[in-house]
Amino acid sequence: MPNPTAAMLVIGDEILSGRTRDANMHHLAGQLTETGIDLKEVRIVSDDHDGIVAALNALRAAWDTVFTSGGIGPTHDDITADAVAAAFGVKVDVRDDARALLAAHYAKTGAELNAARLRMARIPDGATLIDNPVSVAPGFTLGNVHVMAGVPSVFQAMVASVLPTLTGGAPLLSTSTRIDRGEGDIAGPLGDLAKAFADLSIGSYPFQKDGKFGANIVIRGQDKARVEAATAQLADLFS
Amino acid sequence: MPNPTAAMLVIGDEILSGRTRDANMHHLAGQLTETGIDLKEVRIVSDDHDGIVAALNALRAAWDTVFTSGGIGPTHDDITADAVAAAFGVKVDVRDDARALLAAHYAKTGAELNAARLRMARIPDGATLIDNPVSVAPGFTLGNVHVMAGVPSVFQAMVASVLPTLTGGAPLLSTSTRIDRGEGDIAGPLGDLAKAFADLSIGSYPFQKDGKFGANIVIRGQDKARVEAATAQLADLFS
Repeated sequence: MPNPTAAMLVIGDEILSGRTRDANMHHLAGQLTETGIDLKEVRIVSDDHDGIVAALNALRAAWDTVFTSGGIGPTHDDITADAVAAAFGVKVDVRDDARALLAAHYAKTGAELNAARLRMARIPDGATLIDNPVSVAPGFTLGNVHVMAGVPSVFQAMVASVLPTLTGGAPLLSTSTRIDRGEGDIAGPLGDLAKAFADLSIGSYPFQKDGKFGANIVIRGQDKARVEAATAQLADLFS
Repeated sequence: MPNPTAAMLVIGDEILSGRTRDANMHHLAGQLTETGIDLKEVRIVSDDHDGIVAALNALRAAWDTVFTSGGIGPTHDDITADAVAAAFGVKVDVRDDARALLAAHYAKTGAELNAARLRMARIPDGATLIDNPVSVAPGFTLGNVHVMAGVPSVFQAMVASVLPTLTGGAPLLSTSTRIDRGEGDIAGPLGDLAKAFADLSIGSYPFQKDGKFGANIVIRGQDKARVEAATAQLADLFS
């Protein structure tokens, strides 16, 4: 049975401008692979309402589960909650359960629950909250969409909260074999191997090191015996 | 005048599986920002023909220029040239000019120009070649789409070949100001600043360090005087 599928929507200008190098996508990709959920598509869009709505509607229609990161803080450029509500055609406003979480937190820290911080309690109708053990302001789940923070420590904590609620398939097993020959030399036999093991995914990732070409051949699949058999044949081919 | 826009399409399973952390997107984002071209959207898709065609057609219709990375090597999982041709509705086959480049190269190195390597000379009709000073096999430009390799050293060389052919706008200037206060404390005045400088982009990127919250406020714009004025007001607000 094929694994459940997922997509990720990264919201915010900081990666698109080259200011920040993505960390959340890489983290989520690894976690999903371990869980047996196939990450099939990632989109990165800027802080633009219509762009977020369009991307989210495309992704949630195409894949089983969607994870978003970014844009749920208190500042003017945090527009994700409103965009998600618009995508689902539901209302969004400060919700009592989220406000209570924030109120209890700021009562302890002594900071004021001002209008800006209250923005973080804006939750679309029908959503359930995602726990934020790092900085309290919750994420939320609406339909098949999990809306999470962009700060990596918070994002990772929210992923840890959400993943146990999802049903994964068989975890993907993989082997990686380094071949110190150019892809052009190995492509023919490798293509034949991929045909013989059509139930597996066989990828060739070329590299160049010290002026020499080589490739890492990654064999992925859910059936351990098949992955091992293909890996053994690969070793025989280019030994 | 607004800057020209761009999108990137990353093709291949290695980032989606968490095996590899992206490097090409980050490189391109920085180069485009310096050139005065706004990177507006990135999509990462797997080695799937229909998925590549759909993503490419959406991106090339929405933005001025599209850059792709990955999938133009000699192995069975390199399907980008065929997908690009399908997206444009043109034929693709081994082309004489590309074949000549490869033939001259392999004559020197002594490697055989076999069927697998010849795949790298498959160029869609109407495309112009992009020079590959690293490993010869060319990229190509078709319409507003620049198709480039996934190996970072080759990708970067191809970006360097293509960028001088594009007309950028005014390079984006930016300042980054670290505010050691939680976003909830600064969001109100920051929102007012963003309204007063609506011609600029003002982003707040929160961080958490040693248990304390803060934010880097990035102010971006093409007009140096405006960026400096906003940055000075920001400093006054939270000094």
